[in-house]
Amino acid sequence: MKQGLLLFAHGARDPRWSLPFEDVARRVAEREPTLNVQLAFLEFMTPGLAEAGQTLVADGCERVDVVPLFLGAGGHVRKDLPLLLDALRAAHPRVQWQLQRAIGEVDSVVEAMALAAAALLRTA
Amino acid sequence: MKQGLLLFAHGARDPRWSLPFEDVARRVAEREPTLNVQLAFLEFMTPGLAEAGQTLVADGCERVDVVPLFLGAGGHVRKDLPLLLDALRAAHPRVQWQLQRAIGEVDSVVEAMALAAAALLRTA
Repeated sequence: MKQGLLLFAHGARDPRWSLPFEDVARRVAEREPTLNVQLAFLEFMTPGLAEAGQTLVADGCERVDVVPLFLGAGGHVRKDLPLLLDALRAAHPRVQWQLQRAIGEVDSVVEAMALAAAALLRTA
Repeated sequence: MKQGLLLFAHGARDPRWSLPFEDVARRVAEREPTLNVQLAFLEFMTPGLAEAGQTLVADGCERVDVVPLFLGAGGHVRKDLPLLLDALRAAHPRVQWQLQRAIGEVDSVVEAMALAAAALLRTA
C-alpha cells in the first residue's frame, strides 16, 4: 500500500519561517524513501492541506498520515485541522486519512527542546 | 553570577496549548537546579516577557538568556521579541539580556521532529 505523509505547519509571511519545516520534511523523506512526504500550511504559505493532499492522492497514496508540526495544540490543531481533514476525507473517501498527535506532544521532541535550551546557555 | 532563563512562547486561547512548554520549562529546571527558569508568552497567556523578566530581576539574576520556543522564526521572533527585549534592557540595564536562537533552528530539535514524525506512522 502506497503511503503518504502530510506535515502540517502554521505558515507565516516571512519566507525564512518555513526553513525548519522543510528541513523536517527532507529528513523524513531521506529516512523513508518509499514514503511520499508533503509539507502543507494553514495560512500565508502554500500549498494548503487540500492541495498537498490532492498531490498525494494523484500519486496513488492509499493511506495518508497527517502530522501537525505545532508545539502546542490549540485551536489550529484541535479545530481548524480536523475541519480541513474532513474536507479531504469527503473529497477522497477511498483514501485512509489518519490524524496524528502534534509533534510538540511527543516526549522525545519535548526532551530535545529541553536539552537544546540548556545547551544554548553554554554556547552563547 | 545568578542566571535566569526566559522561555518565550506564542500563547493561545486554549489552556491546554501551553502544556508542552510547561513541560520543557520543568525539564530544564530539573536539569539545571541553579537556574531560575521562567516561561513567558507573546499573547493570550500570562506572564508576558516584561513580567517574567521582572521576576528574574527580582530574584537577583544578573544574566538572562531568552530562548524562543518557536519552530519557525518569522515576525514574532524577528520583530516582536527584539522590541520586547529592548524594553527589558531599558528597564533593567544592569542585567545582561542574551537573545538565543529559536528552538526550531537547533539541529537536534529538527532531527527529533523528523524521527518522531517517522515513528508516528508505525504506532498509529
